[in-house]
Amino acid sequence: MQEITLQTAKKSVIRCGAGSFEAYAPKLSGRQVFVITDTNVDRLYGDLCSVFGENTHKFVIRAGEKSKTPRTLLEILNKMLSCGMRRNCLVVALGGGVVGDVAGLAAALYMRGVHLVQIPTTLLAQVDSSVGGKTAVDMGEVKNVIGTFYQPEEVIVDPRFLATLPKREIRCGLGEIIKYGALNKEIYNKLLKNTRKLNSGKFLEEIIYDCIAHKASVVEKDETDISGARKTLNLGHTTGHALELLYGKLSHGEYVLIGTYYELQIARKLGICGGQYAENIEKLVLTVIKRAPFFGDIERAAELAVHDKKNETELISLIVPKHEGECAEISIKKDEYARYLKEVSDSLRGENG
Amino acid sequence: MQEITLQTAKKSVIRCGAGSFEAYAPKLSGRQVFVITDTNVDRLYGDLCSVFGENTHKFVIRAGEKSKTPRTLLEILNKMLSCGMRRNCLVVALGGGVVGDVAGLAAALYMRGVHLVQIPTTLLAQVDSSVGGKTAVDMGEVKNVIGTFYQPEEVIVDPRFLATLPKREIRCGLGEIIKYGALNKEIYNKLLKNTRKLNSGKFLEEIIYDCIAHKASVVEKDETDISGARKTLNLGHTTGHALELLYGKLSHGEYVLIGTYYELQIARKLGICGGQYAENIEKLVLTVIKRAPFFGDIERAAELAVHDKKNETELISLIVPKHEGECAEISIKKDEYARYLKEVSDSLRGENG
Repeated sequence: MQEITLQTAKKSVIRCGAGSFEAYAPKLSGRQVFVITDTNVDRLYGDLCSVFGENTHKFVIRAGEKSKTPRTLLEILNKMLSCGMRRNCLVVALGGGVVGDVAGLAAALYMRGVHLVQIPTTLLAQVDSSVGGKTAVDMGEVKNVIGTFYQPEEVIVDPRFLATLPKREIRCGLGEIIKYGALNKEIYNKLLKNTRKLNSGKFLEEIIYDCIAHKASVVEKDETDISGARKTLNLGHTTGHALELLYGKLSHGEYVLIGTYYELQIARKLGICGGQYAENIEKLVLTVIKRAPFFGDIERAAELAVHDKKNETELISLIVPKHEGECAEISIKKDEYARYLKEVSDSLRGENG
Repeated sequence: MQEITLQTAKKSVIRCGAGSFEAYAPKLSGRQVFVITDTNVDRLYGDLCSVFGENTHKFVIRAGEKSKTPRTLLEILNKMLSCGMRRNCLVVALGGGVVGDVAGLAAALYMRGVHLVQIPTTLLAQVDSSVGGKTAVDMGEVKNVIGTFYQPEEVIVDPRFLATLPKREIRCGLGEIIKYGALNKEIYNKLLKNTRKLNSGKFLEEIIYDCIAHKASVVEKDETDISGARKTLNLGHTTGHALELLYGKLSHGEYVLIGTYYELQIARKLGICGGQYAENIEKLVLTVIKRAPFFGDIERAAELAVHDKKNETELISLIVPKHEGECAEISIKKDEYARYLKEVSDSLRGENG
């Protein structure tokens, strides 16, 4: 087991590795605990909640992105109130990204903020979303409109939960892991050396720690996503999000990888990234998604990207790979971006056809 | 005009005094502005919004406490989204405590936090609620269940808005001002010297500044209401809130004063406060509310007080006056508190009968 401390105005301790649930979850008992989980996780791991002690309430939301709504949030807050939760209570988020986001926001808002512990159960949540304090619900079609930055006091990252994950969920998490490879030299080198065992439990346990350590260092510099450091974590995401919204069949992480692939080709065209490094990043991406897909109407993605909340002007901002451990931010006009996307897509037509 | 800087993780600048609206409101223009106000303020001051420039949207909520709901909050957030507000936009809260609380929460949550400026228009909001970053909406009957701490970047406190306030609203603000008198020696002495001109514009302008300065120093020590410093600002509020919930005919500030009166008598009975100081505090309270009322069934207040979110145990916590510039926290059992309340109330029966 290893520990990472993320120090912003509040201290967040991340406990990583096999055995961390068994070691640290029992220490949360003795207080008023409100566990928020989803139907999938509850079926598999609901029994574990007894570890939090007798004074524990559990609220189960329906599994899936559709639960990330103001309605679910208000249901949770109502339930917390009717259970008599007090200001010194503890919210435990036991689940993937959706549970973490909604439960984190509920903890941030209930009586102006109560204690919060994240126990991520998916690879994506372990490697990325449970760390750094971003919480949110969606509003209609628009992602993460309502949210806060609210650091959990503790994050318990135990690989035990990965055993029951569907392959799609593993690919989803690998998408974010490879993104970290494009941001961090050590992670990049480890990934290159281990392309054949990305799915192995031992390798994942190690690389999860590395990714969290990288993220924690970025969040410490730019907790509220203002100075620019945190923006780098959006590598691949501008295009990935737009494609996810447009086509939405694959997992978030796979779209991030497809986005990374497309944005890498744009960086190549612009002369920002090239040579062996570009080939290696491409290779890493294709280790997980096998091939980058052709999209007949990809220009539509440009319209969605310009409305992304990360864009504060009419220009589209992309974070693209540059060198080992270094990325670059580029801002391009919508039309130019649409043209590039189409060029990349067209070049893939044959391969997919 | 005078300036107070409240420094927590974020800097909040409070601009006080006549002319501050005219001097500082125009400087907010040039950005995307979303003004939140209520029907009363809009009728009187809606035209002033032109000062914020062309790129301004306005959202008017119904005046009154009943607007402090999750529903109003979601309506505002929806409207912000449909108006295309971006992450660098500015929310201006133009109104009293309800507008400030709801608008502050909307600003805290929209895209995980946008710029916020408070322009309080009631005496209560100027002297107290617009400063310090507390935001909230109620949930059913329970006050402030959903909220955050979110510091406004700027607070513009201009006495121009007080001219149109009904007397009840002035009394409401005076309630909080006298509370500050029980917490701060300089304010106490000023109040004692000026009991006959508490309503004068010039006196109010001066004392508003003093109260804000006191509050800012407390909030800097204890932004999120954890260490105890901020708790002192609840002097008179435990009993005041309970009576407001039970009887609800007078203004919030008047109930705070009635609460202060009752809690002062309890402090006397317990030997915590006495002599000339207790008499002076009582005199100040009665300057505004004339007489403290008798309540036939005041024991019921004890039940409500024990459920107050500030109480983390079954004991009831009261902040009571002690000496000049000093208060004391006492924790008493529900039954004991109910008995004291009844004793104080019974002693007032003759006076009111």
